[in-house]
Amino acid sequence: MAKELSGAGLRGQSAGETALCTVGKTGSGLTYRGYDIEELADKACFEEVAHLLLYGKLPNQAELDHYKTKLMNLRELPQALKSALELIPKDAHPMDVMRTGCSFLGNLETETNFSQQQDVADRLLATLPAIILYWYRFSHDGVRIDTLNPSVDSLSGHFLAMLHSDTPNPLHEKVMNASLILYAEHEFNASTFTARVCASTLSDMHSCITGGIGSLRGPLHGGANEAAMDMIEPWQTPDEAENAIMGMLANKDKIMGFGHAIYRERDPRNDIIKKWSKLLSDEVGDTHLYAVSERCEAVMWREKKLFCNADFFHASAYRFMGIPTKLFTPIFVCSRVTGWASHVMEQRANNRIIRPSADYIGPEKATWVDIAERD
Amino acid sequence: MAKELSGAGLRGQSAGETALCTVGKTGSGLTYRGYDIEELADKACFEEVAHLLLYGKLPNQAELDHYKTKLMNLRELPQALKSALELIPKDAHPMDVMRTGCSFLGNLETETNFSQQQDVADRLLATLPAIILYWYRFSHDGVRIDTLNPSVDSLSGHFLAMLHSDTPNPLHEKVMNASLILYAEHEFNASTFTARVCASTLSDMHSCITGGIGSLRGPLHGGANEAAMDMIEPWQTPDEAENAIMGMLANKDKIMGFGHAIYRERDPRNDIIKKWSKLLSDEVGDTHLYAVSERCEAVMWREKKLFCNADFFHASAYRFMGIPTKLFTPIFVCSRVTGWASHVMEQRANNRIIRPSADYIGPEKATWVDIAERD
Repeated sequence: MAKELSGAGLRGQSAGETALCTVGKTGSGLTYRGYDIEELADKACFEEVAHLLLYGKLPNQAELDHYKTKLMNLRELPQALKSALELIPKDAHPMDVMRTGCSFLGNLETETNFSQQQDVADRLLATLPAIILYWYRFSHDGVRIDTLNPSVDSLSGHFLAMLHSDTPNPLHEKVMNASLILYAEHEFNASTFTARVCASTLSDMHSCITGGIGSLRGPLHGGANEAAMDMIEPWQTPDEAENAIMGMLANKDKIMGFGHAIYRERDPRNDIIKKWSKLLSDEVGDTHLYAVSERCEAVMWREKKLFCNADFFHASAYRFMGIPTKLFTPIFVCSRVTGWASHVMEQRANNRIIRPSADYIGPEKATWVDIAERD
Repeated sequence: MAKELSGAGLRGQSAGETALCTVGKTGSGLTYRGYDIEELADKACFEEVAHLLLYGKLPNQAELDHYKTKLMNLRELPQALKSALELIPKDAHPMDVMRTGCSFLGNLETETNFSQQQDVADRLLATLPAIILYWYRFSHDGVRIDTLNPSVDSLSGHFLAMLHSDTPNPLHEKVMNASLILYAEHEFNASTFTARVCASTLSDMHSCITGGIGSLRGPLHGGANEAAMDMIEPWQTPDEAENAIMGMLANKDKIMGFGHAIYRERDPRNDIIKKWSKLLSDEVGDTHLYAVSERCEAVMWREKKLFCNADFFHASAYRFMGIPTKLFTPIFVCSRVTGWASHVMEQRANNRIIRPSADYIGPEKATWVDIAERD
C-alpha cells in the first residue's frame, strides 16, 4: 500500500523499520511485538511487558522472578543525584525534574559501550519513579524517602508506596499496573522518534531518554491527561459538564483527551482504563467525577464523532488513586521509558543517521552591508 | 526538482521548511539567511551572526552594542545550578555536563510562555560557556570561577578567559570568533532535527536544546573534531602521518574529519578554519601539528578524493589555543545553540507535530501463552 505524503510533520512517511509495535493497523488496534494490548493489559504484569519490549520475549516464571529482583535492586539513587534533586525548587515543572534527573544520572553512570545498553535501560526503568518521587516528596513534604522499599516488588506498587508512604492498596496497584502497560509503547510517536533521532548519532542511552522526556513534556504530546483533569475537575455534575463542553465546542476551544492522530475509529486503550476508572469510582465512593467523564465522552461522540483516547479516563483513574495532577505525565515517562529504550536498541542495531532535508523558503542571496550602513 | 527517496535515515526527504540556512545548494555552499558563510566568518563577529539567526537581521551598531551588553549581563549562573555542577565528577563526559546544565537551568528559569523564547535563547547562549567551564574548572582545578567577567565583551573571548583565567590573546579571540560562526547553523542536521521534533510537541526551549545537545554528543555527529585530534595527536612528522593513514585505509578504518553527508565537492568551512590554524601554528611555534594535518588532507584527497570537513582543521586550531580536547564538542554547543533556538522558533511559528510512520517488520500476530507454559 502506498503511503500518503502530506508534506508536513512527516505524517504518513516512513522514517524506519520497527518490530516493536503496530498502531491502528486495522484502524483501532495496538500490538506490542504482535501481542494485542487488550490481552497484555488484562493478563500481564508491567514487568512482563517491559521484558517483552526490552528483551524481545515474554519471560517465563524464572526469568520474571529474576527480572523483578533485578529491578528492585536497582531502585536506589546515588547520593549526588539526590543532592541535585534537592536543589530543584518545589514549583519546578515535574517533567523538567524527570529530564534533569535522567540526564544527571548519565554523568554518574555513563553508558560507555553499547554492550551496557540493557543494564542502562533497566536502571532507568527502576530509577525514574524514584527520581520524580524523591524530588516530589522532598520539595513538597520535606521528607527524604527511602527509594529502595524492598517490601514492594512491583513497579506499580513501588510508585504508589513512595507517593503515599504506605503499603499500596491492591486495587490501585492493579490499576497502575494496567496504566503502565497501556502507556509503554506507541511506535514512532514524537518522543520515541526524538529518542531514535538521538540514537542515530550513536549517542548514549541517557541522551536518548532525556530527549524523549523533553518531547513528551509538550502539551501536544504527553500532557493530555493533565489537561483533561484540569478541564473536568471543576465540573460537579454531568449536566454542568455537558453545558461547559457545548460552550467550548461553540467557542472552537481545543478539548483534550479526544481523538488521535493515527486511530480512526477508537483508541483501544480507552475501554481498558475506563473500566478501571469505574471500579475505582465505586471503591472510593466518587459522587460525580466518573459520571462527569462519561457525559463528556457521550457529548463528544454525539457532537463531533470524537472518541476518548488513552488519556481521558486516565485523568479520573489517577485522581481516584490520590495522584496529584502534576505527576500524571511523569507516570507516562516511567512507563514509556521501556518503549523508548527498546527503540534506541532497535535503531542502533540497524543504524543510519537520521538527517532529513528541508525546503528552503528564505532569501536567495543576501548582500553584506557594513555595520555603519545598516538600518 | 524531485527529491531522491532512499528510505533510510530520511535522507533527501523534506521534513519541513526553513528560511535559516542552505547547505550545499551548489554542492559546496553554506548560507545563513542568505549570507555566505565565507563573508560572515571574515567580516562579522559571532554576536552579529547570532543576532542574524535569532532575530532575523544583521544588527546595526546600536542593536549590536545593546545585544552584546544584554548577553554579558546574562552570564551569571544561579547558585543552585553551580551547586549541581559541583556534584558532577571530574571524569564525567563534558557533553553530559552540558546536557544536564541546560536541563537543570530549565527547572530554575522555566519558559512558561513562548513570548519568552527570545530571552530564553539569549540566556542559554550566554550561560552555556559558563556552564561547561564552571564545571570544568571546579572539577579539574578546584577553582570556582567568576562567570560574569565584565572585562571581556565577546562570547569568544569570554570562553577563553574562563578557561585560562587570563585576558584572551587577541588572535585566539579572533579564531574562536570565526569558529563559533562556522558552527552556528547547518539546516536539518540530526541535532537540529531533534530540537525541531521536540519543539513540534510545543515543549519548552530548554527541552529542545537539551535534546539537541544529546544528539550532538553522538560520535556520528558532533564528536568528529575530538576524534580527529585523537587521531593526529601521536604523529610527530608528516611522513609518520602518511604511513599511519595509509595503514588505516588499507584496514578500512573510519577516518574522522573527512567527507560529508551533504557536501559533494568541498566543505566551505574548511578553507576558513585551515587558514586560521596556519596562523596559529606560526604564532605558537608549532613544529609539526599543522604540517601533519596538511599531509593528512593531501593523502585523503589523493587516495580517496575525500576533502576535509569543518572538523579536521578545528582540531589543530583548538589545540594551538590550549583548549583541551574534551572541550571541543562543548564549544560546538556554545555556537550551535543559536541555530537550534532559531529552528525551535521557526518550528513553533508554523507547527505540525512531527510524527512519522514506521515500516512494521515484527510478528503478525503473537498468541498469549500463560507464564507457566512459557519456554
